[in-house]
Amino acid sequence: MQDIRIYLLDGGSLLLDGYHMYWNVGPGGPIRVPVCSVLVEHSDGLFLFDTGFDLDYVQREIPSEKPLQTTEQTIPGALARLGGQVGDISAVVNSHLHMDHVGANRFFPGATKICQKAEYERAANPYRFEVGAYGDLSFSAELARKQGREAQLKDGQTSQNTRFTLVEGDVELAKGLDLIFTPGHSAGHCSLLVTPEHRRPMLFPFDAAYSAHNMDQFIQGGYHSDPVAGEQSLQRLIDLAGASDAEVVFSHDPQSPHLNVVGDLLAVA
Amino acid sequence: MQDIRIYLLDGGSLLLDGYHMYWNVGPGGPIRVPVCSVLVEHSDGLFLFDTGFDLDYVQREIPSEKPLQTTEQTIPGALARLGGQVGDISAVVNSHLHMDHVGANRFFPGATKICQKAEYERAANPYRFEVGAYGDLSFSAELARKQGREAQLKDGQTSQNTRFTLVEGDVELAKGLDLIFTPGHSAGHCSLLVTPEHRRPMLFPFDAAYSAHNMDQFIQGGYHSDPVAGEQSLQRLIDLAGASDAEVVFSHDPQSPHLNVVGDLLAVA
Repeated sequence: MQDIRIYLLDGGSLLLDGYHMYWNVGPGGPIRVPVCSVLVEHSDGLFLFDTGFDLDYVQREIPSEKPLQTTEQTIPGALARLGGQVGDISAVVNSHLHMDHVGANRFFPGATKICQKAEYERAANPYRFEVGAYGDLSFSAELARKQGREAQLKDGQTSQNTRFTLVEGDVELAKGLDLIFTPGHSAGHCSLLVTPEHRRPMLFPFDAAYSAHNMDQFIQGGYHSDPVAGEQSLQRLIDLAGASDAEVVFSHDPQSPHLNVVGDLLAVA
Repeated sequence: MQDIRIYLLDGGSLLLDGYHMYWNVGPGGPIRVPVCSVLVEHSDGLFLFDTGFDLDYVQREIPSEKPLQTTEQTIPGALARLGGQVGDISAVVNSHLHMDHVGANRFFPGATKICQKAEYERAANPYRFEVGAYGDLSFSAELARKQGREAQLKDGQTSQNTRFTLVEGDVELAKGLDLIFTPGHSAGHCSLLVTPEHRRPMLFPFDAAYSAHNMDQFIQGGYHSDPVAGEQSLQRLIDLAGASDAEVVFSHDPQSPHLNVVGDLLAVA
């Protein structure tokens, strides 16, 4: 088996409230929160997990989150910096379909798109409190049309080239690449466990645990669909990290020790 | 049928964050929030709905909520002001068992105690994120002992005289007094609809809608057990208020038009 190479891609940042980061605990007040994606080079292909937010979308629809994103922090920019291009990506896997995880999906008409069935169905029929989170539907021509948001679609996006492969529960995407079903933050949220052959595993909780503080203190994010499921998912990730001795890498950690190596090689194994 | 008399009892106030009042919407920052109970004089007896918070408990366990409560704002104080005493109460009905709704239950060993079965069971086995909300267990000797909090019990409290009558779903407590099952804020939350013979009905959402702003803008509270159920309950209350032309009276509304008549007769019908 070829080496697995793992990159954390810095996708810019959003301004959230402390009660959004740390549900019922706070303290409140503005916190600038990074938004990261994960790129995995694997012998089966180049896998991109999450695609960040679209700067224009957030500036227009949620300006209160004061988005910051340089060209290098877009997914195409990050790939270019690493010497690749969007056409190299085999599969785009979305941990969930909230707007800060799908913003660059539209750049990958040729890639396989993967998410949980429960997540896709909820994005198609969100509860009222979820409508904003699922506000950027440019990842799916089918859903954008269904919700009357065709204007979000870019030239060339069709039902065909934005179609998802829907998976259910825990799924091995490729050898050493496991999706872990962790609902709660959203109806069909999943996390990622990478288990290289010659290195400590790496666990990416995505929004099941925004940051090390959330995991260490057992605090869910303030935005969620089901906090009971969220608590069970958080416990499952803690148990999994312990059992596998995984290094845990967060996507929304303002104090992430990985932020200064964002976009660089995290590990080769 | 005898007249129904309805009193809103002012139980003091707590300091919460705007994101606690208005989930995902805010704005953040401290808001002083009233805590009210409801007293209903009915030909079948004197019904007390919720019993506020215990000042000592909040000062000791959650000082960040900066509780304010005068003697007159305690339940015994409010009853005395109205010319009654705790022994007059026939039934104490708890909308749910969070600490700011059960604080004075212990004063009513002789009354029937009523709540939803789902609520009692959750208070007996809370999820981790709920442990604080169910932190004052002085309403039940059985639960206080189960959770190792016997120290919260006062002299004379026994399993027998703190036993609950558990109800399930919508229940008519007496003619014109209906509990409406509205889970979401907590596992077994219920609201109250009072339908007098000669007056507009009155709807008390309790924590299914903290305030008029929450109901008008369709915003759940930031603390909840199941926001999907909470959304359905909020919609149900809006529909019910519309269908019955009920006057809606809130228990946690900082801008309540009823606050200046708190403790006074709200309606005679």
